[in-house]
Amino acid sequence: MNQPFTDLQTRDLQYVWHPCSQMKDYETFPPIVITKGQGVWLYDEQGQRYLDAVSSWWVNLFGHANPRISQVLSEQAFILEHTIFANFTHEPAIRLAEKLVALTPNGLQKVFFADNGSSAIEVALKMSFQYHMQTGKSAKKRFLALTDAYHGETIGALSVGGVGLYNDIYQPLLLDTVRAKGPDCFRCPFQEEPASCHAPCSQFVEEQLKAHHQDLTAVIIEPLIQAAAGMKMYPPVYLKRLRALCTQYDVHLIADEIAVGFGRTGTLFACEQADITPDFMCLSKGLTGGYLPLSVVVTTNEIYSAFYDDYGTMRAFLHSHSYSGNTLACRVALEVLTIFEEEPVMEMIQRKGQWMRALAMTAFNEMPYVGEYRQIGLVGAIELVADRATKEPFASEARIGYQIYQRALAKGLLLRPLGNVLYFMPPYIISEEDMRMMIATAKEAIEQFFHERGEYIG
Amino acid sequence: MNQPFTDLQTRDLQYVWHPCSQMKDYETFPPIVITKGQGVWLYDEQGQRYLDAVSSWWVNLFGHANPRISQVLSEQAFILEHTIFANFTHEPAIRLAEKLVALTPNGLQKVFFADNGSSAIEVALKMSFQYHMQTGKSAKKRFLALTDAYHGETIGALSVGGVGLYNDIYQPLLLDTVRAKGPDCFRCPFQEEPASCHAPCSQFVEEQLKAHHQDLTAVIIEPLIQAAAGMKMYPPVYLKRLRALCTQYDVHLIADEIAVGFGRTGTLFACEQADITPDFMCLSKGLTGGYLPLSVVVTTNEIYSAFYDDYGTMRAFLHSHSYSGNTLACRVALEVLTIFEEEPVMEMIQRKGQWMRALAMTAFNEMPYVGEYRQIGLVGAIELVADRATKEPFASEARIGYQIYQRALAKGLLLRPLGNVLYFMPPYIISEEDMRMMIATAKEAIEQFFHERGEYIG
Ligand SMILES: Cc1ncc(COP(=O)(O)O)c(C=O)c1O
Ligand SMILES: Cc1ncc(COP(=O)(O)O)c(C=O)c1O
Repeated sequence: MNQPFTDLQTRDLQYVWHPCSQMKDYETFPPIVITKGQGVWLYDEQGQRYLDAVSSWWVNLFGHANPRISQVLSEQAFILEHTIFANFTHEPAIRLAEKLVALTPNGLQKVFFADNGSSAIEVALKMSFQYHMQTGKSAKKRFLALTDAYHGETIGALSVGGVGLYNDIYQPLLLDTVRAKGPDCFRCPFQEEPASCHAPCSQFVEEQLKAHHQDLTAVIIEPLIQAAAGMKMYPPVYLKRLRALCTQYDVHLIADEIAVGFGRTGTLFACEQADITPDFMCLSKGLTGGYLPLSVVVTTNEIYSAFYDDYGTMRAFLHSHSYSGNTLACRVALEVLTIFEEEPVMEMIQRKGQWMRALAMTAFNEMPYVGEYRQIGLVGAIELVADRATKEPFASEARIGYQIYQRALAKGLLLRPLGNVLYFMPPYIISEEDMRMMIATAKEAIEQFFHERGEYIG
Repeated sequence: MNQPFTDLQTRDLQYVWHPCSQMKDYETFPPIVITKGQGVWLYDEQGQRYLDAVSSWWVNLFGHANPRISQVLSEQAFILEHTIFANFTHEPAIRLAEKLVALTPNGLQKVFFADNGSSAIEVALKMSFQYHMQTGKSAKKRFLALTDAYHGETIGALSVGGVGLYNDIYQPLLLDTVRAKGPDCFRCPFQEEPASCHAPCSQFVEEQLKAHHQDLTAVIIEPLIQAAAGMKMYPPVYLKRLRALCTQYDVHLIADEIAVGFGRTGTLFACEQADITPDFMCLSKGLTGGYLPLSVVVTTNEIYSAFYDDYGTMRAFLHSHSYSGNTLACRVALEVLTIFEEEPVMEMIQRKGQWMRALAMTAFNEMPYVGEYRQIGLVGAIELVADRATKEPFASEARIGYQIYQRALAKGLLLRPLGNVLYFMPPYIISEEDMRMMIATAKEAIEQFFHERGEYIG
């Protein structure tokens, strides 16, 4: 890491302002210039390779530069790249919508297209609000969200987010969201175990619903995993309870499956594990297998009907993005769903989830500073703590995760932790050998870091 | 239009909820299924073709399924489709950033990537706000925008928009934006002519700046053309005045060139015509030549510096989207800018702008109900009015534009008016013959409509 910067690195730092980064960090930790992707691997200028254990921010499913997906994208580009999507349509969008309706929980029937995840959240928030305005419930103007939620970066999406790191400074710009304490299984205030619990912590949402339901249009949640907050996991029973509460209090349920959708949790959608149908399901990321920005909101005929009327009544949903329903992205997404149909993807996720659990339990369970290894489907997370007994967290200023990240990268593993949580969310096509490397290298990087601090490690 | 629906049309209507549409309209005016694009033409299932006079919502520059652009996209797909963009980078993004900095007004030096236009607006709003929070001006919490502005659909972007059609119902969710009456050259309250005026109407912004500058972080505008409001055009002198006012009152200027950038107004960027450098320039749409969602915010080193510090100071700009810096979209955008370098695109736009003006003036200038034909660069607009003398508008309920749109489509021309404004914003590669068809068909569609109403037409 003390090598002189390459020409491209220097040029990058002159003009590019990277997302989610303190750019000063790049002075000593320059951006890695990727020139090629193949399967789970990303290759840099020097030919050094990195196992993409985070699926490039949770988007990649079937490997980088997947030949099958690249082929259909390439063919589509020479036929039709894009067309305006108001009054116009195309077969990739139609077939994609059909598949999404068939695959998502029963009762979700209409597909609205946007381009990034945040915009899908904004669409769901606006649709829910407008629905209530148009059905005589115009007091319903606020949203309820959980502590530690993350739903994106645009003002509406950020307003329902609950991670201070992203929100705090923008507080004066944000909506007045009703906040309920969410599940916290690692430090459960009720001393329950996820496998046996009945979600007593849902009482926090219930209290807020009771107090505010007349003002509330929707509750928004990340089903099963609060991802950006540090892969915080909770059991399906919580979702089931939440669905019942939303129905009871006449408030919509928005399921943000942007991070967990398309198999990550071991079922195609996380909501399946609780056997619930939300009023809105937001999807993006894996939808295109990590190729292109595309997002959808899938909703019910009941919602749709409240907007369906003569033009003059002005009830239409007029939201649009220039690239709504982009043909290239829809074609890619269609191929991704076809892979799910034609290949035994869900079995593969189950099997690899088992490998990962076994390998990770052995590697991490007894390590000092590992508060917990947790896993759902093919998402695994290590929460590092200053004290295993008390679960006392490391101070965020210590940047423990960040330093381990740097050491793992030097060993060819791309981890990118969330604070003090290291996680594994690899592309589904990862081989057993690569998975062993992933787990072993993560362990080495953790050990190396604590050794360098002069601390004993197991 | 009374043909039975095709299989794909029926399937579309069963599952797809289209953007910016009253879906009930589709009962009698079903979505047109596009199967192929070529140059300015879109082809439907029956082989009927439509001249895309609106560049598919203002995104297409060099024609549909442009072989040169499709080729590079195809090649990139097999090399690297996407990589996480925090701490990682790739040559297409670096070279694109270099070109954007070289091409945008002097002083714009840093490129921040997002994916759709609305998100670029949100980035600029958040950056401006955070800049002031971090430079000791924490009273600056509000934005100033113009009447009839349009900046997108996410809550932040919608908050600065001023078109009631998109905003009104969401009012309880929107930021408290300071609104100033914008320029209105067609119905100028000062009876000025655009060619000779000194923008006395800038006094409206000035008054608001005087009253609120201590609370204001930024003024946001669409340079030269307020597009979604109906291609409302105003002269560069207004922009020049606005830049001076923003500097005087210590408020940022955000130039939203999402619709007008990349040559539409006859210069590469509209700001060039006023010889100004905004503090933030937002770009999207034409950036990828109409292929893929990608957007950028280009800003100054001064802004960048206020975020550049040790990590612990927590001054970083933590906004991100999953697909920020998407490799495929950057590669396409790079090719689009290379076409601008290698081909005489700007001369082509000038020349075609002259043809269009000559043809349109002859066709529309003396027509009944044409209040004005106006044009900047290769954007032309016809404002239909109930009374030419008084400029009394048609009632929006009459949906005059919509009905002409339907008639034009039946004749193979895709116009999609904005209220009572018909406009031409064709791909730059349009031939003289196709341009003649575009103007002649638009004229026929207008005449047919008024004939059918039993009204005399010239
Ligand atoms: C001037 C302007 N700004 C912003 C936007 C929003 O861009 P997007 O539709 O990609 O979100 C548009 C889109 O039409 C626009 O015309
Ligand atoms: C659960 C969840 N919702 C929404 C988003 C926002 O999506 P995007 O980054 O595409 O705007 C993310 C992105 O990380 C996410 O994890």
